[in-house]
Amino acid sequence: MSTPVVYYGSVVNPKALDVYDALPRCLLAISAQGNIDFIVEDVEESLIQQTLAERGLIDVEVVPLGRYEFIMPGFIDTHTHGPQFPNLGSGGQYELLDWLQNVTFPMEAKFSDPEFARRTYTSVVQRVINNGTTACCYYGTLHLEASMILADIIHAHGQRALVGKCNMNRNCPPTYIEASSATSIEDTKSLIAHIRGLAPAGRALVQPVLTPRFAISCTDELLDDLGKLASGDNALHIQTHISENESEIAFTKELFPKAPSYAGVYDTFGLLRQNTILAHGVHLEPSEVELIKERKAGISHCPTSNFNLSSGVAPVGEYLDKGLKVGLGTDVSGGFSPSILDAIRNASIAAKVVSLPYKGRDDIPGKYTNRMLPIPTLLYLATLGGAEVCDMDKEIGSFAPGKSFDALIVDTSGRSGNPNFYEHASVDKALDGKKALEAMLEAFLFCGDDGNISRVYVQGRLIGGKSFARLD
Amino acid sequence: MSTPVVYYGSVVNPKALDVYDALPRCLLAISAQGNIDFIVEDVEESLIQQTLAERGLIDVEVVPLGRYEFIMPGFIDTHTHGPQFPNLGSGGQYELLDWLQNVTFPMEAKFSDPEFARRTYTSVVQRVINNGTTACCYYGTLHLEASMILADIIHAHGQRALVGKCNMNRNCPPTYIEASSATSIEDTKSLIAHIRGLAPAGRALVQPVLTPRFAISCTDELLDDLGKLASGDNALHIQTHISENESEIAFTKELFPKAPSYAGVYDTFGLLRQNTILAHGVHLEPSEVELIKERKAGISHCPTSNFNLSSGVAPVGEYLDKGLKVGLGTDVSGGFSPSILDAIRNASIAAKVVSLPYKGRDDIPGKYTNRMLPIPTLLYLATLGGAEVCDMDKEIGSFAPGKSFDALIVDTSGRSGNPNFYEHASVDKALDGKKALEAMLEAFLFCGDDGNISRVYVQGRLIGGKSFARLD
Ligand SMILES: [Zn+2]
Ligand SMILES: [Zn+2]
Repeated sequence: MSTPVVYYGSVVNPKALDVYDALPRCLLAISAQGNIDFIVEDVEESLIQQTLAERGLIDVEVVPLGRYEFIMPGFIDTHTHGPQFPNLGSGGQYELLDWLQNVTFPMEAKFSDPEFARRTYTSVVQRVINNGTTACCYYGTLHLEASMILADIIHAHGQRALVGKCNMNRNCPPTYIEASSATSIEDTKSLIAHIRGLAPAGRALVQPVLTPRFAISCTDELLDDLGKLASGDNALHIQTHISENESEIAFTKELFPKAPSYAGVYDTFGLLRQNTILAHGVHLEPSEVELIKERKAGISHCPTSNFNLSSGVAPVGEYLDKGLKVGLGTDVSGGFSPSILDAIRNASIAAKVVSLPYKGRDDIPGKYTNRMLPIPTLLYLATLGGAEVCDMDKEIGSFAPGKSFDALIVDTSGRSGNPNFYEHASVDKALDGKKALEAMLEAFLFCGDDGNISRVYVQGRLIGGKSFARLD
Repeated sequence: MSTPVVYYGSVVNPKALDVYDALPRCLLAISAQGNIDFIVEDVEESLIQQTLAERGLIDVEVVPLGRYEFIMPGFIDTHTHGPQFPNLGSGGQYELLDWLQNVTFPMEAKFSDPEFARRTYTSVVQRVINNGTTACCYYGTLHLEASMILADIIHAHGQRALVGKCNMNRNCPPTYIEASSATSIEDTKSLIAHIRGLAPAGRALVQPVLTPRFAISCTDELLDDLGKLASGDNALHIQTHISENESEIAFTKELFPKAPSYAGVYDTFGLLRQNTILAHGVHLEPSEVELIKERKAGISHCPTSNFNLSSGVAPVGEYLDKGLKVGLGTDVSGGFSPSILDAIRNASIAAKVVSLPYKGRDDIPGKYTNRMLPIPTLLYLATLGGAEVCDMDKEIGSFAPGKSFDALIVDTSGRSGNPNFYEHASVDKALDGKKALEAMLEAFLFCGDDGNISRVYVQGRLIGGKSFARLD
């Protein structure tokens, strides 16, 4: 992209947990570097050129959005597993620990074969992008080569991502385990160097992330070594699982009898910090919530997976009231859908399930605790909340001058080809522009699919979506 | 269709609540009338012609299914509202009674305009079909003309359906209410006559159904008149809502103080019988379960709607153990998806939510009560269970000689265009034919969408699906 691009039309922009801007006649200018130059709200069509000229843009082509289109920030998937896509829609009869042994580890072991890895990850990454996910936190397998391949493919596609190889040197099958902490750390360092070599530091879309699989699969030595690696490299992100399932929690406490809690295990080894992403957090104790908040770590809420593996229902409203950072994760293949749209729907369902026993009571403390999550909050979790969890909210998650243009163009017209999306849903002519846009957004979040996502941009570059696939 | 059609390939056939047949090398012969002629399991490819000849079929063209295709019975949606499709994905912040006032009644009132009705229903019916629903129980609005239009459109499309106009003469807004029981009954009789005139009795795909909206919206007089109409016409189906929401239940008890229960209201007026479909049943009392069972009426379980309107979670496992007939319903637009695939996923989630407090206990009585629903049961609810609820299980819901060929051809290959369906999911070469087919089915139920439904047949006639749309 060599010249600035200016869009004119409807823009949806998350602002805070309980509010987003619905801007029907917005001018949104993107710089040649793919950053947002400026946003002007509510511009009359006849005043477009004058408005641009006042900002120094003369003779710029303006791209008008269709009446049923809008732009919104891309989705952020704060937790998924690249190698588990071939298992999508299988194993739902298991709970976590049995599911790992019977479904997950055997599939992940296959990624020792680089050709299998390349073929699989090529398909995976375009699927994730076409679902509207502009930034994604990927778990790889334990294999260095396969994980480098995953990073290479994401880099080639132009998606923003964190990519980690699993650290796991105990309580795993003999065919799928690392030999020692030393080799695990060595491979981890090689992956970090490889990923950091893909692009100049300031322009890197793909970044490495330390990925201790979960406490159960790591010896004290390995966690300690990872903690040391992290302490010398503050920019290095960290991702892991926490408190997903009762048996997992019990086993963790058995393995780490001296730790004050599950979260305490990670904290002991220096792995809880501002750029740590903790997947699940279904059964956190109050002291753990406090600790996580103090460390400014974030929770990746994965409701589809939590339902599917009968893990439980995370009390997200309570976490929000307590000030935790929360984003959404698909957790493929514990979750049976790689789409953040499904994560949004199941986050809504999860909050409603939590709220059922409290219906009609007016003595519920807090704003979100034990209540349903309203649309602005669901939108926030899927975008800006996810950016906070990834410690990237200065760059992505919403539109503001200087932030990256990571965005979706959403098509709510009858041309989407999605039979579950009724075009009239967003087209009540009695509604004014703002109300109509709000209706379009709600319909998209609850009924949309990839057919409604016509273009996907990362850092201003078109990398996917339905129109892209057609051009392809 | 003038000559018999024979398919050769993988067939999935529900048999009972806990078992289905996965038949990888099946010969399935369909008569010129669209009925199933015979099924032969496990036929070697070299023996196809000989097998057919033994059954009197010489020189018949055999349609081979692709390696990643299978045939299964079409989905049966036991409860949806045609006029509420334009509201899909809106109003999720409400509970039932507020939602009716603010979202539903205003939209349904628009169907006083026949042109609006025609335009909307034309779009609705093809959407329902393309989602794989071969038989559907439709609520219309209270309008006679719009409901006739709905029936006409379904008839023209060739879908199997029950179509009813709402009976509702109290507790509704002044702009959307029937003037009296007499006019309500008169219009109902006219609709019945119109629908029964569409086709000769033995070949009718569209049938009328009495549709008292719910007890709250009907006076004693209207319910009594409907009961009389029903008692003179045993073939007439009946559909209504029951026990969806606590406020609705309380209001119903207030309106009918003499009735022993909510179900008792319908029973008092002779509206509970073998061909009665009761939507929801979230909060049924034990005596109601007994009464419904005794009357052989069925429950339409609508989990997406029950979650979305915060109605609660129906204890379906318990109903199954107690011997109730149960099918699935989308309940558009209380439910935000018209796809039975979503109803299956949310039925699975609902059962897991119910089972959470009972995890790990081995003292749970029954086979389904407070447990997750296994794949065979989810399949059954979506097909044969729905047929039982509609009192049509002799004709549809599974494949057997003499039953109608209402079926889907499912495509689990990489060509489906569904980014949430990973083609390798069903293609582990280590699996034998039967196991591979089981994996394909599970992946379809949890990750499939309309892209995977290539052809939809009712009574042997191709009426929809992705390939159909392309041919269109
Ligand atoms: Zn995970
Ligand atoms: Zn309903």
